[in-house]
Amino acid sequence: MADPSPTLLETFENPYPNRSYTIDTVCPEFTSMCPKTGQPDFGTLTISYIPNQKCFELKSLKLYLQQYRNHGAFYERVTNQILDDLVSVTEPKWMKLEAAFTPRGGIRTTVIVEYPESDS
Amino acid sequence: MADPSPTLLETFENPYPNRSYTIDTVCPEFTSMCPKTGQPDFGTLTISYIPNQKCFELKSLKLYLQQYRNHGAFYERVTNQILDDLVSVTEPKWMKLEAAFTPRGGIRTTVIVEYPESDS
Amino acid sequence: MADPSPTLLETFENPYPNRSYTIDTVCPEFTSMCPKTGQPDFGTLTISYIPNQKCFELKSLKLYLQQYRNHGAFYERVTNQILDDLVSVTEPKWMKLEAAFTPRGGIRTTVIVEYPESDS
Amino acid sequence: MADPSPTLLETFENPYPNRSYTIDTVCPEFTSMCPKTGQPDFGTLTISYIPNQKCFELKSLKLYLQQYRNHGAFYERVTNQILDDLVSVTEPKWMKLEAAFTPRGGIRTTVIVEYPESDS
Amino acid sequence: MADPSPTLLETFENPYPNRSYTIDTVCPEFTSMCPKTGQPDFGTLTISYIPNQKCFELKSLKLYLQQYRNHGAFYERVTNQILDDLVSVTEPKWMKLEAAFTPRGGIRTTVIVEYPESDS
Amino acid sequence: MADPSPTLLETFENPYPNRSYTIDTVCPEFTSMCPKTGQPDFGTLTISYIPNQKCFELKSLKLYLQQYRNHGAFYERVTNQILDDLVSVTEPKWMKLEAAFTPRGGIRTTVIVEYPESDS
Amino acid sequence: MADPSPTLLETFENPYPNRSYTIDTVCPEFTSMCPKTGQPDFGTLTISYIPNQKCFELKSLKLYLQQYRNHGAFYERVTNQILDDLVSVTEPKWMKLEAAFTPRGGIRTTVIVEYPESDS
Amino acid sequence: MADPSPTLLETFENPYPNRSYTIDTVCPEFTSMCPKTGQPDFGTLTISYIPNQKCFELKSLKLYLQQYRNHGAFYERVTNQILDDLVSVTEPKWMKLEAAFTPRGGIRTTVIVEYPESDS
Amino acid sequence: MADPSPTLLETFENPYPNRSYTIDTVCPEFTSMCPKTGQPDFGTLTISYIPNQKCFELKSLKLYLQQYRNHGAFYERVTNQILDDLVSVTEPKWMKLEAAFTPRGGIRTTVIVEYPESDS
Amino acid sequence: MADPSPTLLETFENPYPNRSYTIDTVCPEFTSMCPKTGQPDFGTLTISYIPNQKCFELKSLKLYLQQYRNHGAFYERVTNQILDDLVSVTEPKWMKLEAAFTPRGGIRTTVIVEYPESDS
Repeated sequence: MADPSPTLLETFENPYPNRSYTIDTVCPEFTSMCPKTGQPDFGTLTISYIPNQKCFELKSLKLYLQQYRNHGAFYERVTNQILDDLVSVTEPKWMKLEAAFTPRGGIRTTVIVEYPESDS
Repeated sequence: MADPSPTLLETFENPYPNRSYTIDTVCPEFTSMCPKTGQPDFGTLTISYIPNQKCFELKSLKLYLQQYRNHGAFYERVTNQILDDLVSVTEPKWMKLEAAFTPRGGIRTTVIVEYPESDS
Repeated sequence: MADPSPTLLETFENPYPNRSYTIDTVCPEFTSMCPKTGQPDFGTLTISYIPNQKCFELKSLKLYLQQYRNHGAFYERVTNQILDDLVSVTEPKWMKLEAAFTPRGGIRTTVIVEYPESDS
Repeated sequence: MADPSPTLLETFENPYPNRSYTIDTVCPEFTSMCPKTGQPDFGTLTISYIPNQKCFELKSLKLYLQQYRNHGAFYERVTNQILDDLVSVTEPKWMKLEAAFTPRGGIRTTVIVEYPESDS
Repeated sequence: MADPSPTLLETFENPYPNRSYTIDTVCPEFTSMCPKTGQPDFGTLTISYIPNQKCFELKSLKLYLQQYRNHGAFYERVTNQILDDLVSVTEPKWMKLEAAFTPRGGIRTTVIVEYPESDS
Repeated sequence: MADPSPTLLETFENPYPNRSYTIDTVCPEFTSMCPKTGQPDFGTLTISYIPNQKCFELKSLKLYLQQYRNHGAFYERVTNQILDDLVSVTEPKWMKLEAAFTPRGGIRTTVIVEYPESDS
Repeated sequence: MADPSPTLLETFENPYPNRSYTIDTVCPEFTSMCPKTGQPDFGTLTISYIPNQKCFELKSLKLYLQQYRNHGAFYERVTNQILDDLVSVTEPKWMKLEAAFTPRGGIRTTVIVEYPESDS
Repeated sequence: MADPSPTLLETFENPYPNRSYTIDTVCPEFTSMCPKTGQPDFGTLTISYIPNQKCFELKSLKLYLQQYRNHGAFYERVTNQILDDLVSVTEPKWMKLEAAFTPRGGIRTTVIVEYPESDS
Repeated sequence: MADPSPTLLETFENPYPNRSYTIDTVCPEFTSMCPKTGQPDFGTLTISYIPNQKCFELKSLKLYLQQYRNHGAFYERVTNQILDDLVSVTEPKWMKLEAAFTPRGGIRTTVIVEYPESDS
Repeated sequence: MADPSPTLLETFENPYPNRSYTIDTVCPEFTSMCPKTGQPDFGTLTISYIPNQKCFELKSLKLYLQQYRNHGAFYERVTNQILDDLVSVTEPKWMKLEAAFTPRGGIRTTVIVEYPESDS
């Protein structure tokens, strides 16, 4: 199976490009495969961004994320890769992605990545 | 059907114009139509503002928002438009509008706009 | 019926006047009348303050607030008036009043006033 | 505007007609109009049923319920009418409909209808 | 002030008198006066009933209950009296009233009355 | 210190002796002493009863329960004793007492006693 | 891709076959494909059963359920089929399966099947 | 390490043997070892019983349960064994044990055993 | 009865004095007496501190707080006094005490004191 | 039994070392022994860090933490020691560890340590 690709992501023109405002999108149905165990992983992705000229289209976001359904991906790598893909396609003023995965072995992990990195 | 118009919005004189204070108003019964699918959208609007000389009247706010009931409107555009309308009518010191829409295709979106834009 | 008056409010001497500390008081049983519709309003008042030389006495606060039971009062005016009364009687270093009213017509409102006004 | 009609409701053949089992469907986005005030009402419909030969199709249920969006309907009548429509189209062994409406004037109402009526 | 009277309660004709069904109505804004202390009491009334020929009208219910606002009434007596009034006016097949009062002295009380009495 | 005694419990005449109805009273501020460790115990008492000719008065209930504040009492004994006292004073048709104590050593216990015993 | 098959399900000998007792197993990570839209579905399966001679092994249950990951299946059919498979392999005294799917188009559905069917 | 033994369980005389009443004890800190993987398991035990002549003493219960800390035990076996031990030592009129274990591989299991078995 | 005294408070040496770190301790079972009404008060104390050379020992904290069980104390005074005692015994870099008391007359109060006072 | 040692902790190479991002890991199944009473302690560890070149591997973290299962450890010491071990092995840009222990004697404690210490 081919690797997930950002080409599925579609954008539309930001209707209010002169105002900085925030869009939060929550996707509780993300699933991918653990490359080590071959078992499925499940998580909730929360994407927050301040759009510049482009906003991502929600249906294309869904199809883009579904590419990971049978794709092997470690938590840290997949979270960074999705942020990179969304940033490259929408070129936002700011974007943050939180990926909260369900527990495995009694332990649960959330990865939080931001573009550009905050100074604090 | 005519486009929603701010003329329905009524104001009353701020009874304490010399003090900067905050009014939060939550409207969990907002509904509009998706222009693409023709399906209804549902959301909760939270309006926070520091009034200047004028406060919006709650019953007129309800009637103003009901204009969107059969009106096609994308999330980003409608949220910005409602903020613009409320700002033009009340001329507040500060106003923020959060529009949290219910899930579609397993994905839910919240749009947050502010006037004037914060510096952070 | 006479207007509500701060004369019912009693104070006691702050037992630790040399330390700035905070007292939060929550009154979930506030009720007044809407001057326009004649219908009762209900709300929760949260008073936070840093006392100076005087603290308000809780039983007198209850009696003071009960004066509004059959008194017509708009949300914004009554919240500012109660803050003014509490400030005039206790002369605090700082005080904030949040008045969260129950929904009417599917819309609910919270008014937040502060003394002295914050700079932010 | 024409009255809501059950002709929009589509069914599919129950895949396990020999086993009595239960299907619960929750529709939190029901809205209609109050015939008296002309104001919109909002509610959550919960439909539980034991299918006989036919199950209702979910997308057609959504379209059927959207017919009430601009239709005047009192709580008690609309709840009974929807049950009647669903029963006439699916001819179930048993069906229950709970319609929980949002508060008006500080009062909220839920109507619960059942087919056939329980004996208790 | 005159005693609360059921004459304010209005009914409308049950639109489905041939089906036994249930109507639940929740009134979280009930308030009356304690005859002993003169202090206001607050509570949530939940009325459930199976209508016969008549349903109570919600706005008239609200006005009926507001008669208790400045009326002295003990928990047990007021709950039984409201049930009696609602039963006399609507003549239902069955009715239950739960009155859950807020805490006093760290103790809170709920009174539950039913018509006709259950056999269990 | 003298043992707790039911003589503090006062009753008033049941205003509706001809109707069987239920009164639930929740006391989240019960405290007694563990006879073994000398440490205080804390719990929430929930008293439900169908009164006969007499109801217990709430303020006297509070004073009655405060007798246990410095009194040594095991969970099982104190729960049964309080039920016995309340039954002897009010002679109810039915009464149940649930005493839910806070955790000790990571274990928490609730004792539930009933008068008369249920048949199930 | 081959159809899901119960051959992956493994059992172990019930260690207490002489006592009727209940085992509840909750699987919040079930996912399959909608045969109509090709979109993934997500749900929580709750399996309750009274074992006879055999209990299902949890790891094999997980692998069995993962067969549905890329398999097209309508809600009603897949729930009945999983119950049939679990019953055929474990031959329990009683088993119930609740499949609660996440919302689609603002509507969510739960299917509840039982073996043998209850009499009520 | 020796197998867990009921000899650690101590009882005290039921102070009210003539009344059937219920004692619920919740132990959220149970832990044992999985015999297959060698990994620790965690769970919450809820013990409900109607004592006869004897009640179990809580500190001895804690020590009894701690014997499982490094002991290999499958869910079904350990739950039945603990019920057997508690029944043999306290000889209750009725006892139920619910053991709710934390998730493993995204799946969580609760085992419910009862003495004597209910007829339903 | 003697006044509560900090002499019961024991400390142990901070095992990591070179690192500034925070210890939060929550005591939901605090009780004292109202000096005015003679009635018991109940509250939850939350102590947060950055230890210097000494940490307070938890069992001694419990015994120290139990001294207030039969001691008359107003909310503001007792909260400040406990902070002073804890500060004098542990000499921390920073300490905050929140005392949240349960409702009286429908009003609840929380007192928050800090050492040293924050500059904000 | 040997002391817990960081040698069990394994790391993998940070896949995005050029971006500062945060990983939160929650371990609700931590247990150790109280050195004073010999009784087990239970807690939830929350580890947040910004990785540098290395991330800790989750399975090795689980095995590392299990070393404390039968190891005596005071709250403050064990929290600091685990932070030191995790810092020494992963050399992060920043790390915070919150250890929230379950109540003992009605009192619960959380220890929060950070590397490097924050300036505030």
